[in-house]
Amino acid sequence: MFGVTILGNNSALPAYDRHPTAQIVTLHDQQFLIDCGEGTQMQIARYKIKRSKINHIFISHLHGDHYFGLTGLITSMGLLSRENPLNVYAPAALLDILMLQFKVADTKLPFPFHFHAIKEEGLILEGKKFTVETFKTQHRIECWGFIIREKKHPRKIDKQKIISLDIPAVYYERLKKGDDYEMKDGTIIKNEDLTFPNTPPSSYAYCADTIYDLSIVDKIKNVSMIYHETTYLKDLHERAADRFHSTTIQAADIAQKANTKKLLIGHFSSKYESIDAFLHEAREVFPNTDLAIEGVTYQVQ
Amino acid sequence: MFGVTILGNNSALPAYDRHPTAQIVTLHDQQFLIDCGEGTQMQIARYKIKRSKINHIFISHLHGDHYFGLTGLITSMGLLSRENPLNVYAPAALLDILMLQFKVADTKLPFPFHFHAIKEEGLILEGKKFTVETFKTQHRIECWGFIIREKKHPRKIDKQKIISLDIPAVYYERLKKGDDYEMKDGTIIKNEDLTFPNTPPSSYAYCADTIYDLSIVDKIKNVSMIYHETTYLKDLHERAADRFHSTTIQAADIAQKANTKKLLIGHFSSKYESIDAFLHEAREVFPNTDLAIEGVTYQVQ
Repeated sequence: MFGVTILGNNSALPAYDRHPTAQIVTLHDQQFLIDCGEGTQMQIARYKIKRSKINHIFISHLHGDHYFGLTGLITSMGLLSRENPLNVYAPAALLDILMLQFKVADTKLPFPFHFHAIKEEGLILEGKKFTVETFKTQHRIECWGFIIREKKHPRKIDKQKIISLDIPAVYYERLKKGDDYEMKDGTIIKNEDLTFPNTPPSSYAYCADTIYDLSIVDKIKNVSMIYHETTYLKDLHERAADRFHSTTIQAADIAQKANTKKLLIGHFSSKYESIDAFLHEAREVFPNTDLAIEGVTYQVQ
Repeated sequence: MFGVTILGNNSALPAYDRHPTAQIVTLHDQQFLIDCGEGTQMQIARYKIKRSKINHIFISHLHGDHYFGLTGLITSMGLLSRENPLNVYAPAALLDILMLQFKVADTKLPFPFHFHAIKEEGLILEGKKFTVETFKTQHRIECWGFIIREKKHPRKIDKQKIISLDIPAVYYERLKKGDDYEMKDGTIIKNEDLTFPNTPPSSYAYCADTIYDLSIVDKIKNVSMIYHETTYLKDLHERAADRFHSTTIQAADIAQKANTKKLLIGHFSSKYESIDAFLHEAREVFPNTDLAIEGVTYQVQ
């Protein structure tokens, strides 16, 4: 399972029951929260996300619609007697805000809280089965995107071959990793003769608030799915540039150039009551586009 | 019109679509916001409150469930190009939090923003037709309640008397204020012979988070309506005291001793899915009690 569940798809002003940005990325047994606008903890309850499973939270930038729900979520985790460590990755100044808010409320968290200030592009988290990288986007203030990648899946063992060659079970893990096998007589049997390739690993790039910026393309090249903001429809490209946001066809152009399989668009301006036109415009450029709809989970594959 | 509209009636953990504390007090042409928990700006939209009419915001204390919605609300007012001044009355440390959040986001408010640090009990705002006072409550951190009072209504002129005595219209305003009238021959006509009393002014006391504290009674004596927190049912009075909160019958006891006409209870713990028992318990002690239900406006009279 590798999926993205949308909790908020609107830009700064909440409107039409659309909420500020927040997404849950589910990968195997991990749940990552990316951005945490006001009301995220209510959206988490609404869509029955287990907040106890969220161990890593990534905040792209310190505009309120991307983090005003964070202190509330963390406080609630404390009230619910969470014990597991919580990790937050964000621009450094967020720690000052959190600490000030905890101090005035005399909040004592009952779990270990680890804050990781994002300082440069590159790997920020590595697990057994995944990595998380960050990259800069061009916005009005310091802003970071994130790429979550599955690690390469182990190869699948060709059971018939293994049995016919009488290879002991103790070697299976090494075969799955790609090692060749040496018979007792010294003959080397190539790994590809003993295993099948597994499905290729998938990856997801979250392009946080950003102006249309072709330098992103290389950073996210060939990921399986891209989320890119589309605050405005294409006719408002000047306003988008002025505010360091993007339009539908700009996001779609990035997706096409980055050679992704699927594009998810969101961060819709509250000036649009209907968001249908976003889909039509983006699909003209990149057909496999979907709107980021709250409560819906999009498979990364 | 003097009414209280509930936007949030739950305690710290949002649950069962109950939201953290926020109330709108409408008094003539004024709309006051008391407390501003996370999601208040969405609740304001949901219940069609005109946020442009809110010129004064009162924050009781700096536990997040009473103010985490404030920076978002103020930021949105800015995005909506508000021009009218906005006044916030709150514990001093809130200004540091707001300024830090505005600074990291590079937020420039397009309207005058006035922060009033609450320092002592007494009058904090006076308008033509109302006053707002604050008083201390006993909670885990610095916490303030608020009393909003209509000013005395002008007396009503007895038109028949006025005409029969040929009193010029220029004197009407003074008569409404209670002045006597001197005839040309020097005879004094008492005000009560020329006017009728108007309806008595109403008043509303918001008892923010507080332990059961009889010293509140004198501070809110004889107000028309009291809001008092009831985080727990009566059997959990020990937990309530431990956490500086109150139970149903404690709130009702305060209401009875304060000689109010009506009690509104809220700030329900998320441990209760149904809140019906709150009403039954409180009414046993103080019959004219209502639950604070989100979206409902309660008349102060």
